[in-house]
Amino acid sequence: MKKNNNNEGRRKFIQQTALASAGMMLINPLDVFSQTNKSLDMNKNIKSRGYAGKDERGTLVKWDFERRAVGDNDVLIDIKFSGICHSDIHTIKGHWGAQKYPQVPGHEIAGIVAAVGKNVTKFKIGDQAGIGCMVDSCMQCDSCKNGEEHHCETTGMTGTYGSPEKSSPTGITQGGYSNNIVVREHFAIKIPNTIDLKYAAPLLCAGITTYSPMMRVNFKKGDKIGVVGIGGLGHMAVKLAVSKGAEVYAFTTSASKVQDIKGFGAKEVIVVNAAEDLKPLKGKLDYMISTVPYAYEMSSYIDCVKPYGFFTQVGQPINGQLEINNFNMIFNRVNFNGSLIGGIPETQEVMDYCAENKIYPQIEIIKAEEINDAWDKVVSKEARYRYVIDATTF
Amino acid sequence: MKKNNNNEGRRKFIQQTALASAGMMLINPLDVFSQTNKSLDMNKNIKSRGYAGKDERGTLVKWDFERRAVGDNDVLIDIKFSGICHSDIHTIKGHWGAQKYPQVPGHEIAGIVAAVGKNVTKFKIGDQAGIGCMVDSCMQCDSCKNGEEHHCETTGMTGTYGSPEKSSPTGITQGGYSNNIVVREHFAIKIPNTIDLKYAAPLLCAGITTYSPMMRVNFKKGDKIGVVGIGGLGHMAVKLAVSKGAEVYAFTTSASKVQDIKGFGAKEVIVVNAAEDLKPLKGKLDYMISTVPYAYEMSSYIDCVKPYGFFTQVGQPINGQLEINNFNMIFNRVNFNGSLIGGIPETQEVMDYCAENKIYPQIEIIKAEEINDAWDKVVSKEARYRYVIDATTF
Repeated sequence: MKKNNNNEGRRKFIQQTALASAGMMLINPLDVFSQTNKSLDMNKNIKSRGYAGKDERGTLVKWDFERRAVGDNDVLIDIKFSGICHSDIHTIKGHWGAQKYPQVPGHEIAGIVAAVGKNVTKFKIGDQAGIGCMVDSCMQCDSCKNGEEHHCETTGMTGTYGSPEKSSPTGITQGGYSNNIVVREHFAIKIPNTIDLKYAAPLLCAGITTYSPMMRVNFKKGDKIGVVGIGGLGHMAVKLAVSKGAEVYAFTTSASKVQDIKGFGAKEVIVVNAAEDLKPLKGKLDYMISTVPYAYEMSSYIDCVKPYGFFTQVGQPINGQLEINNFNMIFNRVNFNGSLIGGIPETQEVMDYCAENKIYPQIEIIKAEEINDAWDKVVSKEARYRYVIDATTF
Repeated sequence: MKKNNNNEGRRKFIQQTALASAGMMLINPLDVFSQTNKSLDMNKNIKSRGYAGKDERGTLVKWDFERRAVGDNDVLIDIKFSGICHSDIHTIKGHWGAQKYPQVPGHEIAGIVAAVGKNVTKFKIGDQAGIGCMVDSCMQCDSCKNGEEHHCETTGMTGTYGSPEKSSPTGITQGGYSNNIVVREHFAIKIPNTIDLKYAAPLLCAGITTYSPMMRVNFKKGDKIGVVGIGGLGHMAVKLAVSKGAEVYAFTTSASKVQDIKGFGAKEVIVVNAAEDLKPLKGKLDYMISTVPYAYEMSSYIDCVKPYGFFTQVGQPINGQLEINNFNMIFNRVNFNGSLIGGIPETQEVMDYCAENKIYPQIEIIKAEEINDAWDKVVSKEARYRYVIDATTF
């Protein structure tokens, strides 16, 4: 996909600035003015409270901590809603490598700008704003300059939680299961006032992670797209692909999800109990995306793609390890690839797209004290389809 | 790659028919006329002698057997040379699935047409002809009609050895480690008289298997192509890519091969002892092809390809199983695929290309009684670079 986000971005900035003035009326004045530049000592660390993992057992507990003071290029966001992503669980449990603790997970963050540094131009106090999976990068390399900050070629991107960060009082970035966050303005996404913050939050990982690779294959209306694993990411992939005119084939191991998934617009839902169940679709789909976050028998799914088509694995298994069978690959002629979230301009794009087209994740709002239970349900595939934490309960 | 083989094929047929008349003088008349349609009872099975595996231990022994009588659409080829491919070893040892025995391996077959069925138009007695990895397919489906017989959609291709075949007196196809073979003319490749049969043989698997995926990526002169594993297939990949103007980076674990590989035209030879050795090339290559026939730590190699480039695995490990790390894949953004030999028109294309451009495999001629020793050396990476059996020694 050739992107031309600069002009588009500017146009939207104008639209949204206009909207924001009107939108202010919708926001609880207490939220907006509780902590403003006037009342805030810009040199002092920000006090936060959230839920943190303390070790690989992955039970989250209440934790008070500090974030860095709001710098000249930073915004302070009062978090209103925070989505729960399977990545949070994998990370805290050390499935993707050793971690530092305490660590506050959460990278689907939506809230209200409460303070802005003196150089900030993209936001003003009271704006709706979001943060996805990254909070910094070098901003100098070709990838960063081309809106692929997640593929920063020098420092690599700084993840929203668990990444070493000198400016952070805790030594690592701390994520969105908390009541506020400080972030370099570039990495905050403008959330139009036409979308509720609770729906906006999951777009910042589940939305962009599925949107980006699907846009890359440049599919046409009527193309057949397969989505494997219909959880937080997968259900967004279904909704996004349907909204762009694809004929969507959804693959799930949960028979109880069939009606929901049809409601999301899928043409067909395949309940997979064995590799046999995939055979009728062998070589039939133009593209497939898999959100399955564990190692699974991948080759029979890949076989469903037409020769020379693409299959993207966005779900990240334990230690990243997947088995691929090259006997299948030499016959199916499918191109297998991975995809990591998306850059900031494209994250803004999917946010605006979903707001405009009223594409909302199917969510269940929970309180902070329900996080551990929600995590268990995500792992046992009981989530329908995204848990979103009400940040007033931290 | 858009192919237009019909016209090209016709033009070459005319060229080669002309050449063949002259070429006849070069061929030992005894070879040509030892078994002709006149002296042959076309209704009788053909007596063959070769070397067969009797079980999964994979020690080959002399074996006399019969092939089907020469049918109306068949040619009988007196085999002169037969290449040894790692696939022969994998197959007979059951690494790719249970086998029927006795089984004669060999799918790099070059010889002289000794008899033709009454409908045969492509060959006449005395022509040089070759057989690669397949001897039949349905010839009716879209893939077959489009020159992708190896991807036949109905029956699948019939492999040159070990495939069930009703017409074969032994119930399975028997390959090229033998003194003759009967094959449907469509599946025989015309070998120009400008190339020696001993050089032609390895082109029928090692040549086409590397040529086909490299042509598919449509690389430009000066593009950087990586070749992993410099054995029978790999050294042909190097020579073919160099001949098409690529800058070739060869990856080997055998330091003793460096000078040879530079002689093949590689710009750089990387002797890989550890994943570390690959880091300088991270993200630098336009395309990579791996011929490694065992599972290996693939992800560090894939990382050498530029974002959105392609990596093709043609080497087939035991049971096809390879491990792929999706952490690498989401960052490297490389498309991984497999590739299976090539169709008949493209096999003809690489044969003609190599003959015209004098691109010859580096071979060592052996006698039939040396096959088992040669197999050991293929496995222990001592082959330099293709063993070719002198079929007069069967």
